[in-house]
Amino acid sequence: MESKNQAITSRDVDFAQWYTDVCRKAELMDYSPVKGFINYLPYGYAIWEGIRDFADRLFKEKGAENVYLPSVIPMSMFAKEKDHVEGFAPEILVATVGGGNKLADPLVIRPTSEILFSDLYKRLVKSYRDLPKRFNQWCSVVRWEKTTRPFLRGSEFLWQEGHCLFETEKEANDNALEMLGVYDRIGRECLAIPFLKGKKSKHETFAGAVATYSIEALMHDGKALQAGTSHYLGQGFAKAAGISFQGRGNALETPYQSSWGISTRLIGAVIMVHGDDNGLVLPPMVAPVQTVIVGIRANDEKVKAACEGLYEELRKLGIRAKLDIDPGKTPGWKFAEYEMKGVPLRIEIGPRDLEKGIASLAIRFSGEKRNVELASLPSQIPALLKEIQEGMYQAAKKRLEASIVDVEGIEELNKALEKGGYARMAYCGEEECELKIKEITKGGTARVIYKEGVEGKTCPVCGRPATVVAYFAKAY
Amino acid sequence: MESKNQAITSRDVDFAQWYTDVCRKAELMDYSPVKGFINYLPYGYAIWEGIRDFADRLFKEKGAENVYLPSVIPMSMFAKEKDHVEGFAPEILVATVGGGNKLADPLVIRPTSEILFSDLYKRLVKSYRDLPKRFNQWCSVVRWEKTTRPFLRGSEFLWQEGHCLFETEKEANDNALEMLGVYDRIGRECLAIPFLKGKKSKHETFAGAVATYSIEALMHDGKALQAGTSHYLGQGFAKAAGISFQGRGNALETPYQSSWGISTRLIGAVIMVHGDDNGLVLPPMVAPVQTVIVGIRANDEKVKAACEGLYEELRKLGIRAKLDIDPGKTPGWKFAEYEMKGVPLRIEIGPRDLEKGIASLAIRFSGEKRNVELASLPSQIPALLKEIQEGMYQAAKKRLEASIVDVEGIEELNKALEKGGYARMAYCGEEECELKIKEITKGGTARVIYKEGVEGKTCPVCGRPATVVAYFAKAY
Repeated sequence: MESKNQAITSRDVDFAQWYTDVCRKAELMDYSPVKGFINYLPYGYAIWEGIRDFADRLFKEKGAENVYLPSVIPMSMFAKEKDHVEGFAPEILVATVGGGNKLADPLVIRPTSEILFSDLYKRLVKSYRDLPKRFNQWCSVVRWEKTTRPFLRGSEFLWQEGHCLFETEKEANDNALEMLGVYDRIGRECLAIPFLKGKKSKHETFAGAVATYSIEALMHDGKALQAGTSHYLGQGFAKAAGISFQGRGNALETPYQSSWGISTRLIGAVIMVHGDDNGLVLPPMVAPVQTVIVGIRANDEKVKAACEGLYEELRKLGIRAKLDIDPGKTPGWKFAEYEMKGVPLRIEIGPRDLEKGIASLAIRFSGEKRNVELASLPSQIPALLKEIQEGMYQAAKKRLEASIVDVEGIEELNKALEKGGYARMAYCGEEECELKIKEITKGGTARVIYKEGVEGKTCPVCGRPATVVAYFAKAY
Repeated sequence: MESKNQAITSRDVDFAQWYTDVCRKAELMDYSPVKGFINYLPYGYAIWEGIRDFADRLFKEKGAENVYLPSVIPMSMFAKEKDHVEGFAPEILVATVGGGNKLADPLVIRPTSEILFSDLYKRLVKSYRDLPKRFNQWCSVVRWEKTTRPFLRGSEFLWQEGHCLFETEKEANDNALEMLGVYDRIGRECLAIPFLKGKKSKHETFAGAVATYSIEALMHDGKALQAGTSHYLGQGFAKAAGISFQGRGNALETPYQSSWGISTRLIGAVIMVHGDDNGLVLPPMVAPVQTVIVGIRANDEKVKAACEGLYEELRKLGIRAKLDIDPGKTPGWKFAEYEMKGVPLRIEIGPRDLEKGIASLAIRFSGEKRNVELASLPSQIPALLKEIQEGMYQAAKKRLEASIVDVEGIEELNKALEKGGYARMAYCGEEECELKIKEITKGGTARVIYKEGVEGKTCPVCGRPATVVAYFAKAY
């Protein structure tokens, strides 16, 4: 398909440049003067508000309660959980001066808050009757990154971090899996993105966790994107913080923890899963503008009145509608603009349409056009938006499924990963072999485990018996 | 009135201790291990969510668009606006190490974001057609404080900061006043708090602003609380950032700015305006639980069923209801607990009530009790909650108005301020006299200006002609 909007690079010619072009031309973000940090502009931030509000409702249904903890962590506390501090040490920003004085205990700008939540729980939880606790926090975190890309990797991003505390190992691990399921629902119902979900390999496990679970999406260039993670943390953080509670048998016990997070990275996923050469394509659930009404020859009083009437009706139905009857711009300019912004549905009304009592609909993701009777139009829009949402999800699911191949041996893996998409392969599950696979395939990593327990296969790297089958892919 | 709940200090005996007791016993916050920083617990954070959602809707109605800018500001940029940097320098937290390396340009953890917004506008605004811009940000800010108190003053707090850019001085100043009006509405409709609103004296004007407007509330101990501010910034920040735009006459012009903010301090205001010896008293609009249904002898199946049925009906009406049919705690314990938490309305249903077909209502703020026919109860609740909201506002307004006295001379002022409340007094309007008044009255400051332009009066400090009448008070 030829690119209609010459202002952006074609997706298939240079995906990275196309991505940056969309971020800029759709006015999602701006490069801030602070190296590695971006400004979230209104249109981009509104997408995040949509995701946040949708997710927050689901979290609360699962019993989560929102809190807010300090944005800084004393270095002395941060150093308590050994694996955790080692994992995060290279990417922390540290404050050393406060109120003009050198700080005796420097403050780490939070990269994640396991440490502070554990400390809080230490004070709040005395007995099994105080459990479970399911706290969640919406905030920003800072991780000092060398190379950055809008929404995908930056020195600061917005996210939520759920931190839960349970009496038993099973409850904590179940919670990590339950929240992974919630993330999967967010993918389907909100982002129109299908995920592969599963456990991470040892090598990809979060610093300090017993098990990390992840949702992985497929971008249009064939690369994978880790879109959210959920961790079963065991008792490590609880022990480091000294949390204990009186158990049912009266003895002091140590609780089990989980944590889970999704971030503004999901905006990047939406762009790279659905976008095309005309720009952004937004699923209706996260679109700041779900329907735009464009008046053709809008200085015609009848056209203007019809557009305004329709706009009011859509607003009453709770649809995020926008009215454009600005006579200063051509319909062509407007079409390109709303396509760039990814508005799911465009309604065009002109003098000739009015004579016939119809309006023209243009569906952004499929390019489909329909003529609809004007009188019955408003009542059809909610169902049409649902249809678009589901259509986008199904199209993305088809691409994801078509991308998966089963391979054996490094050569096959290499070929598959060069082509793009996910390759399922059995291997020993050990870190050193993953590192070798990454080196040989120039970036191929185990994204999530497909199957644990494999018989009769060997690891293509070390030759030992294979223990797991994993989805391999090159990833962002 | 005797304190029913012996667990907290009486309000009139020791207001400061009473305040801390309420914050702790109502489970609003927890002292974090980071000195000067608090943890916002679920119940406290839910109040903030209520305020935020209410305010956000009003802001958006006024054309505000939400964005998110970095949480750190390069020191080199921060130093650009001279008055601003001087005002904030003593209370900044500074990061000097990132990713293990010393930063060439240290990063200030944002105490406010005028600098970054101005820098953003510099790139976005090229022509008068790009104006006005009305961006708002919900975030946390850090100000290094020596003495702190939950919600009122802390080294980190949550707030919103609106930053707007206009073609003309009038529009910018009008916007600052318009947003002051929005804050006033938030007071009345959401917090049930009446404000004195007006311009600040020179001495109390924000660092870098031309004019600062403020809303001031009266706490129960007779002290004032600045609850929100709105600034007309003139062209200072725009010039420092180098913002210019092509004006209507084609010449390059410098725009005018405003900024406005409210914070989690409003939670402190709600506590100190409405609370009593039984704990928190919440206005229905911000109450995380608006109505609690307490079953008396809830192991009686009929009572249980009636409570559950009522709960479902209230939820359907969109009321934030809580059901308590836990047989493990006495009604007395529960009443004290929900009074401490400030739940506006308690509905009690017991076996004898059921026989009569009634329920007992207890209104938290007035202590009033009513018997209501059970069948018609649900439909009455929305109106009753509105009545409570308005009743709380009117009661607070009466106290505010009764506290205001007109005084002449330092002696009268001193007496009035020792008694508490606001004293209106004419003075010259100059900084040095305000500082002297503060010294003589041990903390009395000009809160907002009541009237500009005064004839025939002299300043009681310097003896020069008085120019303004201000509301003086001791303040938090």
